[in-house]
This record gives sequence, C-alpha cells and structure tokens, in this order.
Amino acid sequence: MSNSTSPQALRAKIRSGEHSGNTSGFAAGYVQCNIVILPSAQANDFLRFCQLNPKPCPLIAMSNKPGDFSLPPLGNIDMRSDVPSYRVFRDGQLNEEVQDITSLWRGDLVTFALGCSFSFEEALLADGLEVRNVTDGVNVPMYRTDIDCNPAGAFAGKMVVSMRPFKAADAIRAVQICTRFPSVHGAPIHLGDPSQIGIADLGKPDYGDAVSVRDDELPVFWACGVTPQVALEAAKPPFAITHSPGCMLVTDLRNSQLAIM
Amino acid sequence: MSNSTSPQALRAKIRSGEHSGNTSGFAAGYVQCNIVILPSAQANDFLRFCQLNPKPCPLIAMSNKPGDFSLPPLGNIDMRSDVPSYRVFRDGQLNEEVQDITSLWRGDLVTFALGCSFSFEEALLADGLEVRNVTDGVNVPMYRTDIDCNPAGAFAGKMVVSMRPFKAADAIRAVQICTRFPSVHGAPIHLGDPSQIGIADLGKPDYGDAVSVRDDELPVFWACGVTPQVALEAAKPPFAITHSPGCMLVTDLRNSQLAIM
Repeated sequence: MSNSTSPQALRAKIRSGEHSGNTSGFAAGYVQCNIVILPSAQANDFLRFCQLNPKPCPLIAMSNKPGDFSLPPLGNIDMRSDVPSYRVFRDGQLNEEVQDITSLWRGDLVTFALGCSFSFEEALLADGLEVRNVTDGVNVPMYRTDIDCNPAGAFAGKMVVSMRPFKAADAIRAVQICTRFPSVHGAPIHLGDPSQIGIADLGKPDYGDAVSVRDDELPVFWACGVTPQVALEAAKPPFAITHSPGCMLVTDLRNSQLAIM
Repeated sequence: MSNSTSPQALRAKIRSGEHSGNTSGFAAGYVQCNIVILPSAQANDFLRFCQLNPKPCPLIAMSNKPGDFSLPPLGNIDMRSDVPSYRVFRDGQLNEEVQDITSLWRGDLVTFALGCSFSFEEALLADGLEVRNVTDGVNVPMYRTDIDCNPAGAFAGKMVVSMRPFKAADAIRAVQICTRFPSVHGAPIHLGDPSQIGIADLGKPDYGDAVSVRDDELPVFWACGVTPQVALEAAKPPFAITHSPGCMLVTDLRNSQLAIM
C-alpha cells in the first residue's frame, strides 16, 4: 500500500482489519479527520465548544442524527469500523483501545469529524517549505499553552498547539498558505517567544516528539486537534470514543477542496 | 482641509499651490502613490526593475507614452503640478525641490506611479491593529537591508524596508491583511531578528524615525518604496524627478480597490 492508495481502497482495508495503524502519509491529497464520538446528552455542548473554538476544533462534518454511523459528506463511511484504531473513554478515563466499535455502538451516539494538520502540512510541503517533523520522521511536537479555550458546558481547558520551526520568510509564507485552510486549523496562532503562550521548554513537548529549532528559525505555533481531547478529559462524559493518535478517519474530500480561495 | 477631503479637491489645492506639504492622513480611503519620472532612454530599464522587484516597487500605473503628463487610470491628473513637492535629480544628485515641474517637463518623460504603505496602514488600522508610527505621529522607520534587488540595466541596489512592531498574533493578522494588497508592498518580507536581513540597530533607522519595540513585540518588515530611490541613486540617470518624501500623488483609486480578494 502506498501513499497513492485511494481513500476508498484504504478504508476497505481498515474496515476489514487489514490496516490498523497510523494513516500518516497514506491516501496523499485526501483529508484525514480527528474523530470524537459522544452520546447525544453531551453532543450539543461539544458542538457549541467547537463553534466557540474553531481554530483548535474545526468541525468538518457531523452525524445527521444520533445513532447514524454514516458521514455522507466525507464518503461512504461506516464510523463503527472505518477508523484504524479507536480509544474508548468511560467517565473521562481511557478504558480500552480497539479496532472496531460495532459492538459498542449505541443509538444515541453522535460523530464529530474535525480537521487535522496533515492537510495543511501537505500544502506547506507542496509549496516547497520544509516541515521539520516530516523531515525527521517523527510526530509533531505539541504543547499545552496557558490560553483558555472558550468553555461550553463541561467542555473547557487550555489550548494545545503544535509547533513547526521556520525561517522568517517561510513563516510568513506558511501564514499565507494556512490562511486558505481555516477548516484544518487555519493560520498559526503564535510565533516566536514560546513563553508568551505559557510554554516553558520547547525541548519538552507535552505530546509528540521534540524537533530542533535552529538559530535562524522561529517556532511557529498552530492550534492543535489534541485540544478537544483535553476538553474531553475535563468534561469526563460517561462515554466517549475518539480515534487513536495518528490513526485518522480517511475521507473522500480532497485537501484542495478545503481551501476557501 | 480634513482627512475627508476628496482626492479631486485635494489635487485642486495642490495644483494651485495652496497645499504643498505632506499628504499623510489626507483624502482617507484613497490610494497615494510614490512617483518616479524618467526620460524614455532610462524608462524601459526602470520598468524592468519594477517587474523584477515587485515587492519594493509595485507598479500601479505608468504613462501611456513619453511626454504624456496624464495618468488616466488614477484620475484626472496633471503630473506636472499635482504632486505637492518634487525632487529634481541631475546625474543622480538632488538638484532642487520644487512645487511644480511644468517648466521642467520634456517630451521624453515617462511617469511611474508606485504603491505606498499608507494604503496597507489604513487596512491594518481598520482591523483594529495599532500602527506604532501612526500612534506616535512620526515617520515610519526605514532601513537599508543586505538583500540585493534584482538588477535591471543600471538600476540596482539593496532593498529598503519599513518596520512596524506587533505582538505575534497581530503580526500574523498583518500578514493576512497585507497579503490582500500586493500592489502596496504586500505581505511583510521578514519578521523577528533584524540582523538576519543586515540591520544592525533598530534604534538607528536609515530613513524616518525610530519607534519603540516592546519586549512582547516582534519587529515586522515590509519592502519599502524608498528602494527605487536608492536604485535611482545607483543608476545616476542624467535627469529624474520624484515626489518629495511624504508628499505623494493622491489618486481617485480607493484603497479597497487594490485588494486582490
């Protein structure tokens, strides 16, 4: 299987259990989504949380109604089997990691599909920019900031950001490129001094792997899709399912279709 | 006369000699242009210099033919009298500063009207950003960098930049706003460490006035319309006329009409 696999073919392999790992680099050119699945009792507050915090939680699609495991805008999808690996949370605690949630599916579950940085990284790479975590073959470094998200019901918490280092001219170009893609976190939220957003040590990310920042580079920070997971931990809903890190929902949407211009 | 003066009324006062000073803040909302007037023998090289260096030399309009002192795309303009103050150069040396060039006009002169930072400063202010040189009521600080312009014939030299300090989030917003206006220098060319573009001391601008840069701010640098003046000094054409600093050609074009989106 290569990065030229179609999203349909990749999802078929995921559905059958043949592919159960990371989706990074697969089905190049197509949108991959962060997934949050919640009972309808918590879904409205989470929807409002997304609307209030569009940079970390850019909502691309959601269920038409509770219990519906399709997501027609994103392709012929069965949410119970089309993510390679799921995390099941009970009362906010990680309970198990599974490759299929058909046996756990309920009539009150609502799916949220959120934009992911893979899409804008592809746009940066296509423009000739170097994306350090891609060059180094590691996970992007992510940090909890001191920036409060706008709360909605029990959903609240600090914004998590991802960091990619660039020379100044490339950082400016990255702002221009990512501005075209608001549904995959959009423009960076900060650049330069990490302490201004409550990050003490770039060498010690809270999630992912550290990358080098050279003397002539600025760290550039994007709102990150781990933010809704932190809000989930805070809200402690009785039941919730997310994708496992790096194991995304691969959709039929092309990244270029997310460009607002 | 206030900032709500129409460009037509302001040009009438300039033409009659009633207004002979700075145009900053007058005819708010309308494009003001840097002016370079050259004999046709040098005009083609200068035109190519603009095309090769669009960020410091964004060409908005030029004469239809040598000797023509109108500029129809910009309004009912007489280039011999409609700039408040002109600088006349002979063999690259400043020879005199005059309010009218009717007696100096020649049948071989070609006018170039270049975009000016007043337009994007207005867009930044309209978005609620603070523009330090406007707040302080001083000229923007400008610096010669170590960035070579692309040469065209005898026209060559280092790029000059203007600097405005912003907090990181506002710097990102400024990139977004200015990207919409490529014909008035467009997005910044650098931000952060000034030494990376050959600026030794922000407190000592080569042109204009120093402004404070606070601890939580980044200096943000835009390509500047003084760059073509430096190229003129290098080329030493036998004859050339420019506007005097701050005394621009006020046009009938609205700033918003320069937005590419």
